Amino acid sequence: MEKDALLQCHEKIRPYIHRTPVMTSRLLNELSGAELFFKCENLQRMGAFKMRGAMHAILNLSPDQQQRGVVTHSSGNFAQAIALAAASLGLPAYIVMPSNAPTVKKSAVEAYGGKITECTPTIQAREATASQIQQETGATFLHPFDDHDVILGQGTAALELLEDFPDLDYLLAPVGGGGLISGTALAAHFFGKNCQTIGAEPFAVDDAYRSLQSGKIETNTTTETIADGLKTNLGEKTFPLIQQYVQKIIRVEESEIVTAMRLIWERMKIVVEPSGAVPFAAILRAHPFFEKKKVGLILSGGNVDLTRLPF
Amino acid sequence: MEKDALLQCHEKIRPYIHRTPVMTSRLLNELSGAELFFKCENLQRMGAFKMRGAMHAILNLSPDQQQRGVVTHSSGNFAQAIALAAASLGLPAYIVMPSNAPTVKKSAVEAYGGKITECTPTIQAREATASQIQQETGATFLHPFDDHDVILGQGTAALELLEDFPDLDYLLAPVGGGGLISGTALAAHFFGKNCQTIGAEPFAVDDAYRSLQSGKIETNTTTETIADGLKTNLGEKTFPLIQQYVQKIIRVEESEIVTAMRLIWERMKIVVEPSGAVPFAAILRAHPFFEKKKVGLILSGGNVDLTRLPF
Repeated sequence: MEKDALLQCHEKIRPYIHRTPVMTSRLLNELSGAELFFKCENLQRMGAFKMRGAMHAILNLSPDQQQRGVVTHSSGNFAQAIALAAASLGLPAYIVMPSNAPTVKKSAVEAYGGKITECTPTIQAREATASQIQQETGATFLHPFDDHDVILGQGTAALELLEDFPDLDYLLAPVGGGGLISGTALAAHFFGKNCQTIGAEPFAVDDAYRSLQSGKIETNTTTETIADGLKTNLGEKTFPLIQQYVQKIIRVEESEIVTAMRLIWERMKIVVEPSGAVPFAAILRAHPFFEKKKVGLILSGGNVDLTRLPF
Repeated sequence: MEKDALLQCHEKIRPYIHRTPVMTSRLLNELSGAELFFKCENLQRMGAFKMRGAMHAILNLSPDQQQRGVVTHSSGNFAQAIALAAASLGLPAYIVMPSNAPTVKKSAVEAYGGKITECTPTIQAREATASQIQQETGATFLHPFDDHDVILGQGTAALELLEDFPDLDYLLAPVGGGGLISGTALAAHFFGKNCQTIGAEPFAVDDAYRSLQSGKIETNTTTETIADGLKTNLGEKTFPLIQQYVQKIIRVEESEIVTAMRLIWERMKIVVEPSGAVPFAAILRAHPFFEKKKVGLILSGGNVDLTRLPF
């Protein structure tokens, strides 16, 4: 059923997303000892894979629900994705953002037509504000990752990658709330040929690694990582999928993320955000494990502030 | 004849170069009012179109000449291109570089297998050193742009672009020594459907603009531009081609180059060097001229020092 659901999801969202290119690099292959296939979701609409899940979640609402619009709280890529996905269908999108969110993030959401409501920067205030908008407008709340439709949508990046390169040995994706990694793992399970999925996350926010060890959802005590998309804890829907379908999590140091990011920029000439470079950092760190293997990586996004680069 | 020569050149170099992708951006189309087609030579081997001309020049040497190797003097992309092109055929490449050339440039040439000879940083010393290497080794000297084979090679980027999108109204390329723009203009003339070629250069080094006005090769009194690939004067072979086939030159301010470069990085998520952003800067500056036109741009290269960005 999940296999058919993934295919149906892909059919539905296809007109609204880019089929992103898969890039290779002789030099990065030599550096890593593996054969790497980079799925360039940094070249996706609005600059990240989140567009896929947002589009799918909105398309699966009833016509009546769609007309009343959607609401979410996010200061990151999901806010932009919901704004652009809703705008693509001519629907209203209400985005709750903390008052201290960077101006560039707010401007991006507004540029896509999202209606921003600011709130105090606490999770309670965000949820309360979103809830109030739901009641006032009848808009449907969409969760950035702990949602079956969103998970399937994120999985279509790996689905496309496996359509292009069916015999990958491994698929790697970064782990934040777990939407991308669980969708990727579903795609690898149903469409790969014995393709195993591996998550990558910073040591600084290694909640997924610890959650797999303890068997329950662990939280992060600090969020001091350059990979700002990966600070979130796992969700009730994503964690069981990760337990079932993800082989392991590789953790990386902050300096390894910066090195990986810089290599991608310098050698592949593409802009990738720190979170998107984490899987490549994991491959470099654990390179004997990937020796001579065919490895797909989801380059999750390319939304960075060019005035605040780590190099 | 030039038409056949371009096609034969493309056939020859094809196994050694990437057929680079053509990217489009809805947002940059909206910003400019034109329909833009970016030929991504920043994704070419060694990161710039120079690979095409270098490959063609070396392939056109006799087997005997090839065995003795090639020599050039350059501190930029052409040095890397000659090193990689020669290495692709297992031939020696001797690169004369000024002793004050940045370490990153020397390392890149060495990484491609080029044999570096350092000299004092004057044009006289560079030519004398190259001449001495010619005499000692029998290597053939290759000029970075004022060479018919090099010009044809550079023209194959536009040839591919016109194969993909035959009905472009304009083709834009940056103007340094004129190898790229004259090759581009030949391709537009022979393979476009009434496609006109326009050059783009910084006001700070507007020798090509002034040369077209005066009818003779003008020089630059300063070289204070961020577009470090465009400081060179035109050559005896490139200037007549530019006079015959290039419709006009658009000049841009330094701040316009930085803005254009940043827009390409932020919106297209690709790394382009300042020189490569100059044509897009020209379109933004002269946007009423390009209104609703189909415009091809050669994104000439992506070799930048990430620790020294202008934003």
